[in-house]
Amino acid sequence: MKVGLIGLGNMGRGVAQNLLNAGHELVVYNRTRAKAEPFQAKGARIAGTPQEAARGAEAVFSILADDPALEAAVFGGEGLLSGLARGAIHISSSTISVALSERLAAEHAQAGQGYVSAPVFGRPEAAEAKQLWVLAAGAKADVERVRPLLEAIGRGLTVLGEKASSANVVKLSGNFLIASMVEALGEAFALAQKSGVEPKTFLEVFQSVFAKSPIFERYASLIAGRQFQPPGFALRLGLKDIGLVLEAAGDAQVPMPLASLVKDHLLGGVAQGHGELDWSALGALAAERAGLEKL
Amino acid sequence: MKVGLIGLGNMGRGVAQNLLNAGHELVVYNRTRAKAEPFQAKGARIAGTPQEAARGAEAVFSILADDPALEAAVFGGEGLLSGLARGAIHISSSTISVALSERLAAEHAQAGQGYVSAPVFGRPEAAEAKQLWVLAAGAKADVERVRPLLEAIGRGLTVLGEKASSANVVKLSGNFLIASMVEALGEAFALAQKSGVEPKTFLEVFQSVFAKSPIFERYASLIAGRQFQPPGFALRLGLKDIGLVLEAAGDAQVPMPLASLVKDHLLGGVAQGHGELDWSALGALAAERAGLEKL
Amino acid sequence: MKVGLIGLGNMGRGVAQNLLNAGHELVVYNRTRAKAEPFQAKGARIAGTPQEAARGAEAVFSILADDPALEAAVFGGEGLLSGLARGAIHISSSTISVALSERLAAEHAQAGQGYVSAPVFGRPEAAEAKQLWVLAAGAKADVERVRPLLEAIGRGLTVLGEKASSANVVKLSGNFLIASMVEALGEAFALAQKSGVEPKTFLEVFQSVFAKSPIFERYASLIAGRQFQPPGFALRLGLKDIGLVLEAAGDAQVPMPLASLVKDHLLGGVAQGHGELDWSALGALAAERAGLEKL
Amino acid sequence: MKVGLIGLGNMGRGVAQNLLNAGHELVVYNRTRAKAEPFQAKGARIAGTPQEAARGAEAVFSILADDPALEAAVFGGEGLLSGLARGAIHISSSTISVALSERLAAEHAQAGQGYVSAPVFGRPEAAEAKQLWVLAAGAKADVERVRPLLEAIGRGLTVLGEKASSANVVKLSGNFLIASMVEALGEAFALAQKSGVEPKTFLEVFQSVFAKSPIFERYASLIAGRQFQPPGFALRLGLKDIGLVLEAAGDAQVPMPLASLVKDHLLGGVAQGHGELDWSALGALAAERAGLEKL
Repeated sequence: MKVGLIGLGNMGRGVAQNLLNAGHELVVYNRTRAKAEPFQAKGARIAGTPQEAARGAEAVFSILADDPALEAAVFGGEGLLSGLARGAIHISSSTISVALSERLAAEHAQAGQGYVSAPVFGRPEAAEAKQLWVLAAGAKADVERVRPLLEAIGRGLTVLGEKASSANVVKLSGNFLIASMVEALGEAFALAQKSGVEPKTFLEVFQSVFAKSPIFERYASLIAGRQFQPPGFALRLGLKDIGLVLEAAGDAQVPMPLASLVKDHLLGGVAQGHGELDWSALGALAAERAGLEKL
Repeated sequence: MKVGLIGLGNMGRGVAQNLLNAGHELVVYNRTRAKAEPFQAKGARIAGTPQEAARGAEAVFSILADDPALEAAVFGGEGLLSGLARGAIHISSSTISVALSERLAAEHAQAGQGYVSAPVFGRPEAAEAKQLWVLAAGAKADVERVRPLLEAIGRGLTVLGEKASSANVVKLSGNFLIASMVEALGEAFALAQKSGVEPKTFLEVFQSVFAKSPIFERYASLIAGRQFQPPGFALRLGLKDIGLVLEAAGDAQVPMPLASLVKDHLLGGVAQGHGELDWSALGALAAERAGLEKL
Repeated sequence: MKVGLIGLGNMGRGVAQNLLNAGHELVVYNRTRAKAEPFQAKGARIAGTPQEAARGAEAVFSILADDPALEAAVFGGEGLLSGLARGAIHISSSTISVALSERLAAEHAQAGQGYVSAPVFGRPEAAEAKQLWVLAAGAKADVERVRPLLEAIGRGLTVLGEKASSANVVKLSGNFLIASMVEALGEAFALAQKSGVEPKTFLEVFQSVFAKSPIFERYASLIAGRQFQPPGFALRLGLKDIGLVLEAAGDAQVPMPLASLVKDHLLGGVAQGHGELDWSALGALAAERAGLEKL
Repeated sequence: MKVGLIGLGNMGRGVAQNLLNAGHELVVYNRTRAKAEPFQAKGARIAGTPQEAARGAEAVFSILADDPALEAAVFGGEGLLSGLARGAIHISSSTISVALSERLAAEHAQAGQGYVSAPVFGRPEAAEAKQLWVLAAGAKADVERVRPLLEAIGRGLTVLGEKASSANVVKLSGNFLIASMVEALGEAFALAQKSGVEPKTFLEVFQSVFAKSPIFERYASLIAGRQFQPPGFALRLGLKDIGLVLEAAGDAQVPMPLASLVKDHLLGGVAQGHGELDWSALGALAAERAGLEKL
């Protein structure tokens, strides 16, 4: 298929590579052009604007950091929306707000274009190794048309139904579960350590008892080893996501006190200058509050 | 080995059965004698007091609900402490406070007896199926002597060191991790449901993405299916355990706001009359706060 | 002075009356015209649009429920902005977001108009009785020009400086303090009552010890007497305000876990159908969580 | 009256002085005898043990730091209980747990002695200036007999009923209200400051709007001025009290999430080495979390 891809950050790079590996014809756009150049060598074409990346494509992925970045790439004179052909499909894989996802569904529908909301679970390593788990929601026909693309970038796919923003709710809920677990791990490690149990020992028990869940085990290891750099997922992005969770929760009228608490800890982390660490640094903040080692 | 066992509740029954299965000679004591009788048929002897269960045994398990129950069984004229021979070992598998575990270590040492703190991870089904994960802490020689017993009751064993109460800290921390996850799951399900995503669908994604962790998957299923009865682990016991976590955290000077929040939700559940439901009912309380179905 | 006033809700009515009492020439606008008619009898003129209310006025008050209501009244073809003369001043007394206040300051400056942010403290009774406390921030000359108006509607005035949105930050912080106190009162009453101390008795102590602060005493009385209707300040508006607090806190990078917790309780109240009760009903929600009387 | 007084700390000294001023005959006991000596010069007698302070007295005040200190002074061979005559009354003014108050009521009743629970509100300055507010609960006749003493040490008295521990519940609830307010003030000051509003300015508004409540105004001043030393009430004592609140709340089955949150912040303060600062330092901790000045 002729595919566009907008955004060659940590996540986008892995996705682009896997689309190429699967034999698709790829046009990439990245705000900082230098990041796009390695993909030219691999056979992709570089576009100068999101509009150009969309022109002639059957489907265009967007994989950007947040709502403003996606809005900048989609709307306006050089945006994806103005370049995409009628009947072509925007595959939105960024972690964005439920509200923006709903707006995109409406605007693409009005332009006679398809919109598939397809956020992914997995850190950059997983994107590279084709180990992402992909969610997809949107019109059935659209989802089916892009299924080969979605299968090319991950280890599995869950189709959630026709309401595109459902996928965003589920993605945000998943990130909330992870953040809660990281926060809880942080408190547990702090308690263990101040009670005389080595982080390494606690980690071993955790691995034995709770084992087999790669996500949780991974974060427990990062906390036990204080490996907060380089960030697989930056604390400030975690703050953004849990902010989106609470925004969605406000709209749906769902009190989420655990999410609120975790958000305040992420916000504190950013306020204290740790926004660029991996969000497993939540664990280090818990330790600091307990009078253990400072970040 | 000649083994005593005090407490034939949901957990103790499975442990007793597996000790018999492994060929050990067993004397059991239970406050309500009727619960002990089925084990007589299987070859165990019934003791009339904890003291009697301890007399002549090389090791005695205690598997009771809480601190007061264990104190009642250990101290006093008919207690385990007065019956246990010098050199024999008390294996304490109840989920108790760090403070009581430290007291037991001291009192048994003074009496020339051994004390191995050996709390277990797993619900009653796991106890029955020999699928518990066992922690053990205490004097090395003591732990080694009772190792065959600890291996007879679970799928694995982690030895934590010589300070007996370490095992209690780790056990309590583990229960805190589970409670946090259950609470977070509750909030996530409530958000998904109020946003139009069916619990069943959310569960499928959860199973795909976070999968392979039997503990978390089990709780997600219980919440999605609203299966709060019969309780595998009663909400009021969860309240007790998180209370013990916070007690240990207070002593070690570790702020645990997530634990505090979860405790308040458990306390609300008990106050509103749901103490006998499974503690996965935390999920139902989150739903209720969101204006969804009442418990 | 020739004064316009937009918004004749619970608060606006008292303000309008006091401006008339002070001898000012008043033009009023209200979306539902019927609410404006009583003021015609008292000498005010009724405008058909916000634009018309602003035309020819030296200053125009806006006293509306929230950001969208104020945006609807200010922007667009029939909005205040298009009607206000160069040099005339918009006095913004609604409790709005810091972000909207900053936008208004910029837009009015561009149009050569003045903008004074002047939120008020006090419930509807206070507005009627000229007992509001008024904050004011904006260009010094503008604040001085409208000072007689601000003094006509309250018992006192604090001028905060030239940055208009400062007044909004302080107003929102004040509402947060009140909400925290109401929430804390709710928990304290619940504890007292479940411990056998009558709410009436607890209120007496509160009045003796913490007395002399009309705000806190008033809320303690409302909670003790379960007087949640009619609402002086509706729970759903409280939710809006604490939401704005957290928005401002996010922008300023200030973790406010107490505010987050209170917001979740307000959100729960709205989700459970109590949005139109007075926000002192936070106290009733705390009682309900404790297993006391249901709302 | 012949009065004993046990405990000449910050609070006890003011009480002792006011009892002398009112003309009562006083015997004082303090663990560190040096602190008692100044009172000898003023006409009091010094006792060598609590028992001796109680012997011959019609009533004995105890004003100590916490449960263990009071238990040490009351029970045992040299304790108050063994010295107090039948019919004489123990006036317990320490901030202690509900559970200990109930135990004291029972033990004194068994010994044929009276027990009046009489905790006080006010900081050391208030104790000195006879500005405490005194609560009293216990048998009516006992309360009436000691009424002149209770009136001699404060500006007012509330009698709460015959159940002695009611007074402790109310006292603890009051301290919880203060701690919540201090915490909320801390968050509000942090928000104001990071939004460009000077603490001094915020304090002025606070004084105007919320004014006339000496307690809250006092704490707002301490936070605005960062006057955390010397402590009027040490953070570690605040931690103790909110711990007692939560203990009482657990027993009464009242979820108090605001109290839990405040407790965790106090605990963090102690864990980070600030236990001896005034508990208004909660405000400094909120500022620190926001990336403002470190403590």
